[in-house]
Amino acid sequence: MPESTAPPGFARLPEPPYYAVIFSSRRTAGDQGYGAMAERMMALASRQPGFLGAESARDADGFGITVSYWSREADIAAWRQDAEHLQAQALGRRDWYAHFELRVARVERAHGGPGAC
Amino acid sequence: MPESTAPPGFARLPEPPYYAVIFSSRRTAGDQGYGAMAERMMALASRQPGFLGAESARDADGFGITVSYWSREADIAAWRQDAEHLQAQALGRRDWYAHFELRVARVERAHGGPGAC
Repeated sequence: MPESTAPPGFARLPEPPYYAVIFSSRRTAGDQGYGAMAERMMALASRQPGFLGAESARDADGFGITVSYWSREADIAAWRQDAEHLQAQALGRRDWYAHFELRVARVERAHGGPGAC
Repeated sequence: MPESTAPPGFARLPEPPYYAVIFSSRRTAGDQGYGAMAERMMALASRQPGFLGAESARDADGFGITVSYWSREADIAAWRQDAEHLQAQALGRRDWYAHFELRVARVERAHGGPGAC
């Protein structure tokens, strides 16, 4: 993998193929512990085998997309079964998300610009 | 495909497999015609063969993710070559994006919650 860093907010990823988890969500009102847990989950995910990076954006009205990138499908399956992550998933369904959609995809090709890194 | 509508902001998609274009971007400062063009491009894309839907979120600080969904890779290639879209792409590189990353992926599986549609 390249040594250079990605611009702020962008994941620095290897050449495809790799896997993406596309998580779209609408937050409920209020924080209810979400911010701290989201930070904790990102820290935990980033230490999982096969984690490559993640990008995330959320509108002012609570609709957000987080895409995490992984080397192999098995890495995604392992992270989904992580005990602390399972607890967070349960809280997400109960408290934090009015609705979400999760899609697992195999990234076939990628390019960047302008001044692509 | 189901007749019911997706919750606001979410794309109503068929069962996988289908394709995703994951477009992450950092906007430059100021609108510079971006808002109107983004709206125009979404309207145009939604009339393209194979367009299934799109979801989009942008942070207050200008980092955004748009994921558009397509039936086939050929549909994505055709949209990329659309004349009006090519003009928008050129303006995007010149004026609207400090940086972007575009990734094309094959969605293998999907699920939603809570109260999945």
